[in-house]
Formats: sequence, structure tokens, C-alpha cells
Amino acid sequence: MAERITPRNQDYSRWYTDVILQAQLADYAPVRGCMVMRPYGYALWENARDALDRRFKATGHENAYFPLFIPMSFIQKEAQHVEGFSPELAVVTHGGGKELDEPLVVRPTSETVIGHMYSQWIQSYRDLPVLINQWGNVVRWELRTRPFLRTMEFLWQEGHTAHATYEEAEEETLQMLEVYADFAINEAAIPVIRGRKSESEKFAGADTSYSIEAMMGDGRALQSGTSHNLGQNFAKAFDIKYLDRSNELQYCWTTSWGLSWRMMGAVVMVHGDDQGLILPPRLAPTQVVVVPIWKKDEERQAVLGAIEKVKAALGDSVRLKVDDREEYSPGWKFNEWELRGVPLRIEIGPRDVAQEQVMLARRNQLGRAGKSPVPLAGLASAVTDTLTLVQNELLQKATEFMEANTREPTDYESFKEAVAQGFARAWWCGTAECENRVKEETKATTRCIPFDQPGGTGRCVACGGEAKEVAVLARAY
Amino acid sequence: MAERITPRNQDYSRWYTDVILQAQLADYAPVRGCMVMRPYGYALWENARDALDRRFKATGHENAYFPLFIPMSFIQKEAQHVEGFSPELAVVTHGGGKELDEPLVVRPTSETVIGHMYSQWIQSYRDLPVLINQWGNVVRWELRTRPFLRTMEFLWQEGHTAHATYEEAEEETLQMLEVYADFAINEAAIPVIRGRKSESEKFAGADTSYSIEAMMGDGRALQSGTSHNLGQNFAKAFDIKYLDRSNELQYCWTTSWGLSWRMMGAVVMVHGDDQGLILPPRLAPTQVVVVPIWKKDEERQAVLGAIEKVKAALGDSVRLKVDDREEYSPGWKFNEWELRGVPLRIEIGPRDVAQEQVMLARRNQLGRAGKSPVPLAGLASAVTDTLTLVQNELLQKATEFMEANTREPTDYESFKEAVAQGFARAWWCGTAECENRVKEETKATTRCIPFDQPGGTGRCVACGGEAKEVAVLARAY
Repeated sequence: MAERITPRNQDYSRWYTDVILQAQLADYAPVRGCMVMRPYGYALWENARDALDRRFKATGHENAYFPLFIPMSFIQKEAQHVEGFSPELAVVTHGGGKELDEPLVVRPTSETVIGHMYSQWIQSYRDLPVLINQWGNVVRWELRTRPFLRTMEFLWQEGHTAHATYEEAEEETLQMLEVYADFAINEAAIPVIRGRKSESEKFAGADTSYSIEAMMGDGRALQSGTSHNLGQNFAKAFDIKYLDRSNELQYCWTTSWGLSWRMMGAVVMVHGDDQGLILPPRLAPTQVVVVPIWKKDEERQAVLGAIEKVKAALGDSVRLKVDDREEYSPGWKFNEWELRGVPLRIEIGPRDVAQEQVMLARRNQLGRAGKSPVPLAGLASAVTDTLTLVQNELLQKATEFMEANTREPTDYESFKEAVAQGFARAWWCGTAECENRVKEETKATTRCIPFDQPGGTGRCVACGGEAKEVAVLARAY
Repeated sequence: MAERITPRNQDYSRWYTDVILQAQLADYAPVRGCMVMRPYGYALWENARDALDRRFKATGHENAYFPLFIPMSFIQKEAQHVEGFSPELAVVTHGGGKELDEPLVVRPTSETVIGHMYSQWIQSYRDLPVLINQWGNVVRWELRTRPFLRTMEFLWQEGHTAHATYEEAEEETLQMLEVYADFAINEAAIPVIRGRKSESEKFAGADTSYSIEAMMGDGRALQSGTSHNLGQNFAKAFDIKYLDRSNELQYCWTTSWGLSWRMMGAVVMVHGDDQGLILPPRLAPTQVVVVPIWKKDEERQAVLGAIEKVKAALGDSVRLKVDDREEYSPGWKFNEWELRGVPLRIEIGPRDVAQEQVMLARRNQLGRAGKSPVPLAGLASAVTDTLTLVQNELLQKATEFMEANTREPTDYESFKEAVAQGFARAWWCGTAECENRVKEETKATTRCIPFDQPGGTGRCVACGGEAKEVAVLARAY
């Protein structure tokens, strides 16, 4: 169990990896830059996956599976795509003991191979829209990696859709961004800023990219989901055409959108504290852990009897775990489940049995303030109400933190201070010169041009030139 | 829609691929030997996955995710493993634009990398057993491929467990074989033979392999799931040790077990007919399709109104699809959904509306015999009862087919006839000589030594030598 976790304010980065390793969310793999998602991390990912998958299906999407390997020539068909992804490719050159005629790329993303299939499946306007999502793994050769946030192989979903018009494609792109925002806010309890990516930050091959950006506990930004309007770029590269109602051949308009296991890293960084993880109840693999407390053997029987009543009262309404291991003390178990971020703990001792009650303790408020007795009679509703309360408290705290660390600087000096600590929301000219200068001098990048704009024009916070939009800038993971 | 499907008895192999392509379960990918699982196929796979996953969790297993890439040196650590898998490996030699110091293998199976992680996670008998499953993709360089049955990349699950004793490992191995058999029989409506693999057919690195074997519609066998007792082979190769209760260091006993999307191919081959797929209700993405029938516009309103009543009556109790497309005729839709194997069809025409009934048609019995009127009042229970009936009928028909095509030859001539048509259950000496001779002369292989044995001894059906066991032999996919 828990070695010492490096305090957050001492070394945020080490705190992050300490928590992930000790809470057994993940472990380093023997291949550089790769990660093993351990059962506890995978259970968290499963809950996130299911919550997203429900939303995808509710918006008319179906799942499918496309091949891991992509012919090198496919990657080269879309000019910006090959430029963006070439440095990151893992390449299979040998198969079955022989050198291949054409090397195969391990998919870094699947626009190309899916575009190829769509060109065969789509003939007429009647076949449109095509609304498909894929759950799977992708590989990008990253030099500097960090568990969940940036790994050579990662699990994600990638949606790929084809439409008859630009407007429909744009509507889809924005709809899926909203699905991501809804998931982040209402499942992961992470507030996000929705916006458009700048030219330099957009997806390689997209006309327009959108993202949701979240603020981590150290004030840095994490791009947490992206949605791209690919225009006709991939349709032209892969010949995805349809006969319209007037019997004329048209290129389709396509989109793609993805969210990966890096969101699990966001959950750790946004909510965690020096004791370890704090998981939002809606995603937590275990929502309530029950710890029995006794000393004498006659107490043991009474306490275990009360636990049966707790189990009966809660039924399937919550994800419950009873930790009745006898080789560990209650105090050890408290630490263990706090480290692993279980939202609620139920303690039952002899005195509680006598009074037909349990103690209910909230992970997000340790100590006396977060602990209260609850009568066994009303336990089920008390537990579900408290889980809802905790979910809301986590979102509120993260929202307040983001607001407190977002500034609106109007000159370059205060801008630099803002991005040293959190987000800067500032008038922005959007030129490559300003982006490069700011990146070099402050390590901050344009996270997005938020949808929420003041209107009018202003002076660029970096160069003082005319600015038509406000951007959010920050150092990012 | 449906081009002509090659009749089953004209060319079984072409019938199989015709059905898969036209029912849109899958399509060929642009990479040789790879396949795209289309939304309809994926929805079938999702139902199979969920049915298996429930069983894994009910038997105490957790999911996790291990890396796609495995260092070449890992594969070489277990002598039989490297011998078995070397010819099938896909190898990444370049990453991020550079040649790698050590090539990476795209996992053909994950015993090695998981064994490496277990050696780090397991310290004491308290850490045992470790019961982990992985859902993912693997790659084996196959020369002759066929959709679902044999593809270069395939989706599967692989369970990997570690135990303190041989007995526990053997118990786990047999338990998971039984989970597969239960899934095949009760979800896929496919009867299977449980048994032990022969020495030449066992997994590369296993002490003992077990499999479930199913009979396809052409009498050939399909190994549909395997479970391996790996003994201490991988524990020794990867140094997976634990301190026992006497504080002595011991090697663990490990198992692995896998079932892949080839089971979807079995569903096609076992149940399908010349009209296309016949899906078992428990796995069917759509269990009931509703087809409205009208000619005049005033009929249309009445029929669509009745459909609302059908939807209300059935609620969420079945996976329902209403095909109210107006550009296709009812007859066209009947063909389409028969091709796609939807178990039940509800037809509603003006006369049915007047009589407050629907027509209920069973896919597994086309024509008048499988069609009957059902009053709207009792529709929900009629539908669920009929789905259960259909599920049972499919299993019964497949069981009768397997029994009818399984013979018990006692001489080599009748043995050759038996394996030309189906399964041979025969006394078997188990020597490599007999296995090789039979394979060469008849293309049949030892599918398994079934658990169900007559006892005593007999004369080997091939060589006439002493035989202690009965084997099941067949030509196999």
C-alpha cells in the first residue's frame, strides 16, 4: 500500500504519477512510452466509455471496426495529413518472416482507411449521412510521454461521418463537441471551454477543428476532446462521392471527432489531492466502500450482521464494495480507499449497530466536517443524495478554480503573469508571428477561440494590432 | 440490396462470403487479409462481447489493457511460444522516422507482456489469484484468410490468470472452457464438444489446451474458444514468483483463454440458409422488425397508428426496429430483413388494424408455417415467448445436425467417409504418425479428446494399435 505521495504543491508532475501508480490506475509498460491500464483504471475507463457510447447512440451513431494497419500510400493521399502525421508513425516493414512490398502504418488515426471504405459504401444521397464511431487503439510515436496524457499507444474513440452538405457536416461537428462537453461536465465533473482551434493547432487535414479545453490543478490546459469539420479534403483525396437528387455526382463533406483515455488523466489532475484520487461518483468504479470496525469477537458478529442490512438496503442502486478483509486495520483501509478516490465510505462499529445507524464519510471532505451519522432506515436515499451532492461539489470546486485562475489581461506583462498561473482570455490577432512569439517567450499556446465572444474588436494582447476575437491561451499538456 | 446469394449446397464457401458481404456484417479491407466489421456485424459482436463480459465478471475477473507492442526479446523467452508464433509475426522496425534498436512485435497474443507485468505485481500469496481479461486486437500473419474465421488482425478477448497451485490453475482453465461452452450454447445457439487438444494442436507454450469445437453447416469443425493451462512455463520464462505462507519463493501457475470474432462466422455458418443470415434472438442486433403495409393513403394513417401501439406494447422488452421507409415495398423489406437474419417480423396491414392484430413471422421458418396472427392485446408476451422458442429451435436444429453428421467409425475406410462429411468419434492412439497420416490422407485433424469418454480401451481407427481414448476428428476451418 501507499508509499508517500509527493505533495501536489511540491512537485505537481510527480504527485500525478505517484497517484496513478499507487492508486493502481496504470503502470509503465516494458515498451518505451507505453502504458498498462490496470483493472482499477480500466473500470474507470469502462464507465467513461459507456457514458460516451450511450450519447453516441442517442445521436444516431453506430459502432464499427476498421483495420489497425493502413497502407503507407493512403497516409500520403491528403497533403496536410501526411505532413502532420509523418513524424509520428510506427511502421511495419516485415510480416510472416518476409519484408513487405509496401510498408504498413499502424494507424495514428483512421480518416484515410475509413475514407477509402466510405468511397465504396456511399453511392447516393440515400446512403447519407453515414454516422460511424470506432472504439480502438492508435499509435503515435511520441518522444515525451506521461501516463494517460501522452502515450505512444492509446485507447480512444474516433467518430467518422459523411454528409451531403457543408451545413450538415458543420452541424455534426458542433453536435459532437457538445456531446464531449456534456460528458466532461456531467460525468467527469470537469468544466470545459468550447471553442475553435487556431490555424496552427488544428487537425492535419481539417478545415476547422473545435475542442473542449479543461484546466488542470496546476493551471495548465488539457485539450480533452476534439471535433473536426474536414470539409471535402478527405472526400477528394479518397473519392467519396454521391449522386445527389438531381443525379449529379458530388463530393461528400466529412467530419471526425475523438476523445481518448487522456480524459482519465484529467479526472486525476482536476479532482485529486495530497491523499490521492478523488473520483466523481458517476464514473467511480466503486461509489461506496463499507468498512467494518470491531475489536472483540462478539462485536464482529453484530457488525457483519449490520453490513448485510446495508447491502440489502442499497441493493443495486450504487456500486458497492465491502472491505471485510481481516488482515488490515480500519485505519489502513480508510487510507487505501481515500488513495483510490472512492467517493463515499460507510463505517460501521458496535456503537453504530446499537444505534441502528452508520457513519457516512465523504472523500472530497476528509475529517469531521465530511462525516455524519445516517440512520439505517433512510440509508438508500441518503447515499444517492450524497453521491449527487458530491458530484455537484466536485464540478463546482473545479469551476471556481478555473474561474479564479482565468484572467483577462490587456497588456503583455499581465498576460505573461496570467499564463504563468492559469488561463489568459485576451484579444488576439491570430497571426503566426504572435503565436510563435508567445509560445517561445511564455510556453503558452492558443488553446481555442472560445464560442463565448464579447463582440466588437480590440487590441491584440501580444502585438497591439487589431484583433477581432478573444482567444484563450495557456500552457498545455 | 441483395444480389443473388450463391446457394449453400452449390458452393458453401461462396455462400458464406456472399451472406457476410450482402448482409453487411463485414467487408474486405484494403490491406490483404484484413477485414472491416461493419455496423451490423459490430452490433452482433457487441452483444456477444457483453454476454461474455457478464460471465467473466460473474466469475470474478476484471478487465485491463496491456500494450499492443511487445519487444522481440519477450517473444523469444518461452521456447515453444517463439517456435509457434515466429512465422506469424508482424514486426515494427521503424518509429518516428528512425530505425528501432530492438524491433517491436505487434502482439499475436499477450502471455509474454502480461507475464512480465505479473512478475512485478505479484509478491505474495495474498496477491493471488490474479484474474484479468483483456478485450483487444491481435495480429497473426496468415496467408489464407476468410472473413471472421481467419483474418490477419482480429478482435478477441484474452484472459490471463495466475494462481498459487496447479490445481487452482486447472480449475480456472476448465471453468473458463465451461463459460465458453455456456456462451456458445445459450447465447449463440451453437452446440459444442468440450475436450482436450492433442499434443500437436495445443497452444504454443501450454501444458494442456482445451477447446470447444462446433460443427459448421458443411460438416467441418470450427475451434470456437480455447483455454490453456500454461503450467509454470511462462512463470519460469518471466519470473512470476510469490512468497507462500511458509515464506518460501514459488513460481506461479498461469492460464490463458481466448475467444474471438470468429464466433460471428460460426453464427453465420451454423444457422444461415439460402436466404441469408438467421441470427439467434439473444445475439441479434434487431430482434423484431416491423413492416407496415398499405396502399391507399387513408390506410397509411391507420397502419402507422397501429405501429405506435405495437411500440408502446413492446417497450424496451425487445430490440425493435420499425422499417417505415416509403421508397421500398413491403416485399423488398421482407427480403432485406430475411437476408439480415432478424428473428421475427411483424407485419401490419389494414385488415390487421381492423382486427386489432398483427402478423408475426419467424425467420427460421419462412412461408405460411412460420406466420401467425397475434392479437395486439397479448403481443408482448407472444413476442418474448416466440423469441425464446426460436432460440431453442435454432439450438435444437444445430444439435440434431451435429448428431446426424457425427459417426463412430471403427475401421479406416468408414473413418474416411465420416470425416468427408462430418465428425468422426473414434478410438485414437494419439501418436504423431497417425495424426500426420490422417491429415495427409483425409485433411482431418484431431479436434479434441472429448471429456465425454466411453472408458476402457480400443483399437486406433487409423493404425489399429492400442487406444486409451476416443478422439473427435474432422476437417476444420
